[in-house]
Amino acid sequence: MPERPRRARLRSLLFAPASRPDVLAKLPRSGPDGVVLDLEDAVPAAGKADARVHARDVGARLATEHPDLGVFVRVNAVPTEWFDDDLRALTPAHTGVVVPKVETAMQVDDTARRLGDLGLERTEIVAGIETVLGVEQVRELLIPPVTAVYFGAEDYVADLGGVRTESNAEVLYARSRVALAARIAGVHALDQVVTGFGDDDRFLSDAAQGRALGYRGKLCIHPSQVPLANGAFSPSAEEVERARRLVAAYDEASARGEAAIAFEGQMVDEPLARQARAVLAAADDTSA
Amino acid sequence: MPERPRRARLRSLLFAPASRPDVLAKLPRSGPDGVVLDLEDAVPAAGKADARVHARDVGARLATEHPDLGVFVRVNAVPTEWFDDDLRALTPAHTGVVVPKVETAMQVDDTARRLGDLGLERTEIVAGIETVLGVEQVRELLIPPVTAVYFGAEDYVADLGGVRTESNAEVLYARSRVALAARIAGVHALDQVVTGFGDDDRFLSDAAQGRALGYRGKLCIHPSQVPLANGAFSPSAEEVERARRLVAAYDEASARGEAAIAFEGQMVDEPLARQARAVLAAADDTSA
Amino acid sequence: MPERPRRARLRSLLFAPASRPDVLAKLPRSGPDGVVLDLEDAVPAAGKADARVHARDVGARLATEHPDLGVFVRVNAVPTEWFDDDLRALTPAHTGVVVPKVETAMQVDDTARRLGDLGLERTEIVAGIETVLGVEQVRELLIPPVTAVYFGAEDYVADLGGVRTESNAEVLYARSRVALAARIAGVHALDQVVTGFGDDDRFLSDAAQGRALGYRGKLCIHPSQVPLANGAFSPSAEEVERARRLVAAYDEASARGEAAIAFEGQMVDEPLARQARAVLAAADDTSA
Repeated sequence: MPERPRRARLRSLLFAPASRPDVLAKLPRSGPDGVVLDLEDAVPAAGKADARVHARDVGARLATEHPDLGVFVRVNAVPTEWFDDDLRALTPAHTGVVVPKVETAMQVDDTARRLGDLGLERTEIVAGIETVLGVEQVRELLIPPVTAVYFGAEDYVADLGGVRTESNAEVLYARSRVALAARIAGVHALDQVVTGFGDDDRFLSDAAQGRALGYRGKLCIHPSQVPLANGAFSPSAEEVERARRLVAAYDEASARGEAAIAFEGQMVDEPLARQARAVLAAADDTSA
Repeated sequence: MPERPRRARLRSLLFAPASRPDVLAKLPRSGPDGVVLDLEDAVPAAGKADARVHARDVGARLATEHPDLGVFVRVNAVPTEWFDDDLRALTPAHTGVVVPKVETAMQVDDTARRLGDLGLERTEIVAGIETVLGVEQVRELLIPPVTAVYFGAEDYVADLGGVRTESNAEVLYARSRVALAARIAGVHALDQVVTGFGDDDRFLSDAAQGRALGYRGKLCIHPSQVPLANGAFSPSAEEVERARRLVAAYDEASARGEAAIAFEGQMVDEPLARQARAVLAAADDTSA
Repeated sequence: MPERPRRARLRSLLFAPASRPDVLAKLPRSGPDGVVLDLEDAVPAAGKADARVHARDVGARLATEHPDLGVFVRVNAVPTEWFDDDLRALTPAHTGVVVPKVETAMQVDDTARRLGDLGLERTEIVAGIETVLGVEQVRELLIPPVTAVYFGAEDYVADLGGVRTESNAEVLYARSRVALAARIAGVHALDQVVTGFGDDDRFLSDAAQGRALGYRGKLCIHPSQVPLANGAFSPSAEEVERARRLVAAYDEASARGEAAIAFEGQMVDEPLARQARAVLAAADDTSA
């Protein structure tokens, strides 16, 4: 498996239009683990040139002032006329580039080569999987230097010709496939956007689904979603407490020479102990 | 992507036994977009020969009298003893042939070649995906001249050795896969039958699920299902109205140089605008 | 398709730590179709050597005393240091070996070759699919002499980095894939464990889901689950009665030359008749 991404913790990744320097400057306020200065969907064609300047200058400044913050630029898709110029908005201070609608391994290779040409070999790539072809071929797309992937439900369903519903049944196949491929590739998986930015309950249930499916964080399109994502992708105090009890009971049993025990009504052996240890590790990680 | 099918609109495809010429003659009454004169499951072995005559004669007559109606014959599966003779029930007046239980690309090629031998090069092929092997290999099966595909839940679950439930959880994987493959191949996707013909609520919720998953129409096994399918696969007045408002707000914002806006509590950018434009296009299509 | 497994009926497969000979001896009491003497998760490293002796001796005795009972040993995964020695716990009296965390076809081949070296050519292999890589590659793994497969939800979710929930949504993709692959390979599919051993309702709803998805039996981690599994994977009296009526009505119609009939509010043709015949066959099988 490839090396771990530099930034292990990316529970929340907050997007804003790179055309709005006033908004960009305030992005860190809600406490996101990462921010994305968006040159793609959020910026109309006429505004791309100006937006690149902001993505570059405000991005570099944010990265310098907030060393723990992941600072990304989302460029337009590789086949578009804007892609080449968009890449020039990146500097060595930026953490990485978000490439939307990735569909072929060649698009990843092209991106990496052009970053190299610009002297940006250390720039991470976050791949957006959000088309039917991308979902179908995802196993071939998460190759180095991709360090993270996001599943884009809105674009995916638009491409599929389907309908978005609160049940998320229409994306379960695609959302599951992307998480599975991310795990096999050893990259960080970021879950779909919730477009209704005032509906905290929906965001939380959507995030809980995503976490169950193996996602480690969520795209956010409003600052109010950031603390929700940070909470949802950190183990709760209750979960940590239960994991601690479970591991203690399991370790005590192991010392006695037993490896399968009844614990609070469940049969616990190695796989459940491993799940509990993962909760404790995540708790250490997020409280750090 | 291959050429669009001749008949872009196929919201309802109504089946009847080709052994029943009285029933066949009345098929257009409920207003289906297409009809299928069935030589397969609906006709016992002893009746196949007579049924072919009806499929041919009544089919050609329906096609002539109803130029907007898609008129199809479902033959028996390619490996059966009946397949070759069944194909002779088709005429140039028929829209196409429905081939059930497709499992290999060679079966598609064979069908196309034999149609060519019969001088029926313009006959469309609707492929039935309804076995475990068909679902597994679906990506290889939707090749020209296939213009549409249906997912057959009852046959699929019988082959799987599973149980059909109203939740449809047991077919979500297969039903998702078929819709995805249809979209990649650029063919029309037709959703599963609802066997309970008196239960309109179930039909409508099943159709809504299918539409969310990317299906464009539904197999019908009773005339009462036809208007339900036609409605379910056309955007509702409410959806059209909302899409109109969304596109107007988005276009207005674009004119101001913005490409991401808050609209009725949702963050709207290009993917949601694209979903709304698809609703408006479908509304134009179905009201035409 | 490969030959059917020797033991067609495996509705319940009850696990116990091979380190506990007292528990092993009592395994048949709850009436399982098969038992597994576990050398893997249920036995700590220090206890493996002693446990092998019990797996061998108690296993051979159980097999001799209960000729209808499937007697299996679960070994540690092929890449572990224990695998080779674990295989020596098997005798010709044992029905088969359960190999956990299978990820490559070579692991299956290795297992078969080593069994051959030990003179155990007739030993069945039950493959455990319970990692992301195993699920992804499952189609290549169910090769002879594998006669059955189980889906291990707890290990799978631990490997995925997800969270187990009662909805089972997080495993639907993987659980569906494994059942589909099992059907294509012609091997018996065994459904996931329910770790909460006191919660009969959950076990029954979980088993009903599994059966709908094509599974034929369930792993059990407590004797109280065995009668539940035996019942859940046998058709109910109601199902049998309805299947009998449906087949009678369908056969009567066929005699009249009809092959599609309205039956109790459903349109019934060959696929539904086939589902009903499968229910009757399973009923004969389980009452035998």
